[in-house]
Amino acid sequence: MSSTALDAFKAYAARTIRLGQAGSVLGWDQQTYMPPGAAASRAEQLATLSDFLHDLSTGAEARRLLEAAEAEVAAEDPEGDAARMVKVARRDFDQATKLPKELVIEMARQHSLGQEVWVEARRTSDFATFAPTLEKMLDLTRQQAEHLGYKEHIYDALIDLYEPGMTQREVASIFADMKPGLVSLTREIAGSSRPVDDALLHGEFPVEKQKEITLRIVGAIGYDLTRGRQDIAAHPFCTNFSRDDVRITTRFDPRFLNQAVYASMHEAGHAMYEQNQRADLEATPLSGGTSLGVHESQSRLWENLVGRSRAFSDYLLPQLSEAFPGALVGRNVDEFYRAINRVTPSFIRVEADEVTYNLHILLRFELECELLTGALAVRDLPAAWNARMEEYFGITPPDNAHGVLQDVHWSAGLIGYFPTYTLGNLLSVQLWTSAEKSLGDIYAQIQAGEFAPLLGWLRENVHQLGRKYMPRELVLRVTGEPLTAVYYERYLRAKYADIYGL
Amino acid sequence: MSSTALDAFKAYAARTIRLGQAGSVLGWDQQTYMPPGAAASRAEQLATLSDFLHDLSTGAEARRLLEAAEAEVAAEDPEGDAARMVKVARRDFDQATKLPKELVIEMARQHSLGQEVWVEARRTSDFATFAPTLEKMLDLTRQQAEHLGYKEHIYDALIDLYEPGMTQREVASIFADMKPGLVSLTREIAGSSRPVDDALLHGEFPVEKQKEITLRIVGAIGYDLTRGRQDIAAHPFCTNFSRDDVRITTRFDPRFLNQAVYASMHEAGHAMYEQNQRADLEATPLSGGTSLGVHESQSRLWENLVGRSRAFSDYLLPQLSEAFPGALVGRNVDEFYRAINRVTPSFIRVEADEVTYNLHILLRFELECELLTGALAVRDLPAAWNARMEEYFGITPPDNAHGVLQDVHWSAGLIGYFPTYTLGNLLSVQLWTSAEKSLGDIYAQIQAGEFAPLLGWLRENVHQLGRKYMPRELVLRVTGEPLTAVYYERYLRAKYADIYGL
Repeated sequence: MSSTALDAFKAYAARTIRLGQAGSVLGWDQQTYMPPGAAASRAEQLATLSDFLHDLSTGAEARRLLEAAEAEVAAEDPEGDAARMVKVARRDFDQATKLPKELVIEMARQHSLGQEVWVEARRTSDFATFAPTLEKMLDLTRQQAEHLGYKEHIYDALIDLYEPGMTQREVASIFADMKPGLVSLTREIAGSSRPVDDALLHGEFPVEKQKEITLRIVGAIGYDLTRGRQDIAAHPFCTNFSRDDVRITTRFDPRFLNQAVYASMHEAGHAMYEQNQRADLEATPLSGGTSLGVHESQSRLWENLVGRSRAFSDYLLPQLSEAFPGALVGRNVDEFYRAINRVTPSFIRVEADEVTYNLHILLRFELECELLTGALAVRDLPAAWNARMEEYFGITPPDNAHGVLQDVHWSAGLIGYFPTYTLGNLLSVQLWTSAEKSLGDIYAQIQAGEFAPLLGWLRENVHQLGRKYMPRELVLRVTGEPLTAVYYERYLRAKYADIYGL
Repeated sequence: MSSTALDAFKAYAARTIRLGQAGSVLGWDQQTYMPPGAAASRAEQLATLSDFLHDLSTGAEARRLLEAAEAEVAAEDPEGDAARMVKVARRDFDQATKLPKELVIEMARQHSLGQEVWVEARRTSDFATFAPTLEKMLDLTRQQAEHLGYKEHIYDALIDLYEPGMTQREVASIFADMKPGLVSLTREIAGSSRPVDDALLHGEFPVEKQKEITLRIVGAIGYDLTRGRQDIAAHPFCTNFSRDDVRITTRFDPRFLNQAVYASMHEAGHAMYEQNQRADLEATPLSGGTSLGVHESQSRLWENLVGRSRAFSDYLLPQLSEAFPGALVGRNVDEFYRAINRVTPSFIRVEADEVTYNLHILLRFELECELLTGALAVRDLPAAWNARMEEYFGITPPDNAHGVLQDVHWSAGLIGYFPTYTLGNLLSVQLWTSAEKSLGDIYAQIQAGEFAPLLGWLRENVHQLGRKYMPRELVLRVTGEPLTAVYYERYLRAKYADIYGL
């Protein structure tokens, strides 16, 4: 037998990961095709899988195999795959063993049930039917955070699940830095003498045509549709069941073009990160994205830096005009580019423009912190949400579906997750700045419909590394400096000063 | 603690069953939406689930809990749920423990890979690319049969998996009885002076309309679409992930109406069997259909005895004419009824008429027996298939896609499965004959669009019993006699003598 301790550990981990992938298929199905009456039985299935997964990830066998692998790789290059794989696995193991099994099972069950409750509450715009679910979820999340432990703020334990190493203090500091600039830019834009009209994006955009064109776009930028697909869901998302099965969802508004086009590009950005993992890392602890912030940097890069650029508009508009001649006939690229970048206070985060987007995140971050610490009661949440919408955007949601009920996250127990969107925004521009140094004029390539150089750079520098480096480490290696808002703020100001003639 | 040994056993079984349901979701996805590049990783996922399931079903804990439950129910009514549940579980356990784990894992992996190979081979009509897969599958199936054991014929071990208690000898005897009558009826029909023209079923039937009308039909007969759904797959099938999530698939031919309408009714027949299980038996060893033959009796009953009846045609034609005015305008029920019951030798089993259908099964049954015993080599299978098509039907398939590659079963390792279709045909008429004694004129109810009495009778006498009775026992209890071909032959002759004026 030439089998090593590392091989034994990897074989064990692969089984665990495959079981988790099966659970992800059930999650995808739940949000796309599952009939409504199946909710309770699906919750049982997911709870059962979660139960097995917890046993596998935290049991004596897992510990024994991990310890043996650690001993074996101790003498190896600490930067090598083997040592890194074991290091990541140790972090996962320690995190998982801190949680009592009963809590893990209960959370899986509640997430699954909560999803259905949220869909119905959002449909009827009825916060009251969702409140008990959120109460329960917050309670479970608080228990989770206490078990995981934290130094300063209960939020630290949670954000660390999504953005390893990040803290509440750092996020608050980033927002404190950015807020004045964002508010000021928003005000300048509101007072601009060159307002943007986006009427051309509102018209007749038949859903079947939108399906076709969004598939064509995501395929063109590099999303491999032989190893992926696009379906419809209430909330666009990306999920993967291996590097060879990475799926995205979107939603179509037959009267508004933007929603699907840029949501599809966004999700394809996530998907390409997963599809371009190294094949030999598949079903190992190093497979997958290193954090949600890094993941979001990929989706935002393709959605905004590529998708909402002038160069991409040059490339895209002729195709859109062909697909929707009635709505877009006679429109020029300048009008189109300005329209897709219209800045305006809005209710729905996923439809927000680049300038106001981070204020949506700030709002959720603040509310999550307050809910967790008990400073805000669940029953007061809609009022708090609406008050802050008024304060940051000057608008009040017409109903809870356009307010506190709009996002899937809290129904799924994803508390501490939202800040990763803003971290991803910052990183997307920081990465782009580095890519430009290697690739030269990326926008000239995009204008010509050449996306392979950019995707290749991202594959080489980010995608194929999987979880080998922690986010902080990855950013430093690739860009030569820590995560910073500087590039992002500079990018926003330059782009919107141009569009709005500031 | 008031928990009993039976409760502990049921809790354990429920976990096992939920894990199996998760595997079924992956199987459904594989045949409906999975991108082609995902085949290998899906095979790994299914193999992993199968591995866990085997451990759970056959391990020391399963044995201990089963034995404790057996001891506890020993004094109880042997006809009660508890005793029956333990008895069924014992049968499952004994069957599962006969198979080495490695074989179970390898079969799961091959089934999953084989499915993809078959889809591609069928698409290109290329048997050579499928042959190695079939060789491998036959080899594994032979190993499986030897482990399971049998008294007379290797086929006995396999058919028992799908139709508990059935043997090769009995199936051969049923076919021997039926064959002369079927051949004679087919000849008489071929020589009839009143041939049937089914041209009205060939025309323009837009797929979207077909989707709509098939959903309406299956909903009307009693398939609960809040706990089910219909998708498109290469081969129509029904699968369930609980009694509250029972899905069917179909396929649409834009130039031919029958394919989807009766395939949907067929699969809905299967689905209603699962949906109408007793809720309190969910995720216990008593949940599910008692055999594939009994399952098929339900699908055939709805497809043929209901769907292809004169009374249902009275009910259906006005709806079809409204949906497809171009194709069906001015057609009367008599023409329509005759058209949907046209008897003609054909290549594809799932599209065969009631009279020739069982000859398709006979052909597969004979070939399976010969392949298993080695009397027929895989390389000679297409020639043997075509020769027998010529012998029984007087026609030769134009290519392998219309011949030996048409069915999914062998690619999925389902050898010994086909005879259950014929057993189901026989039972469908035997059950109908019993139902008529309780319900009176069922066809008058159907003509009026009243399907609830029939469904209610089936629910009461078949569906809700789940696996409580073995097929042989169930048939005797419900119809008062053993399974017999008498009613089926009588039904066929009467129906087709009328249509063809024999």
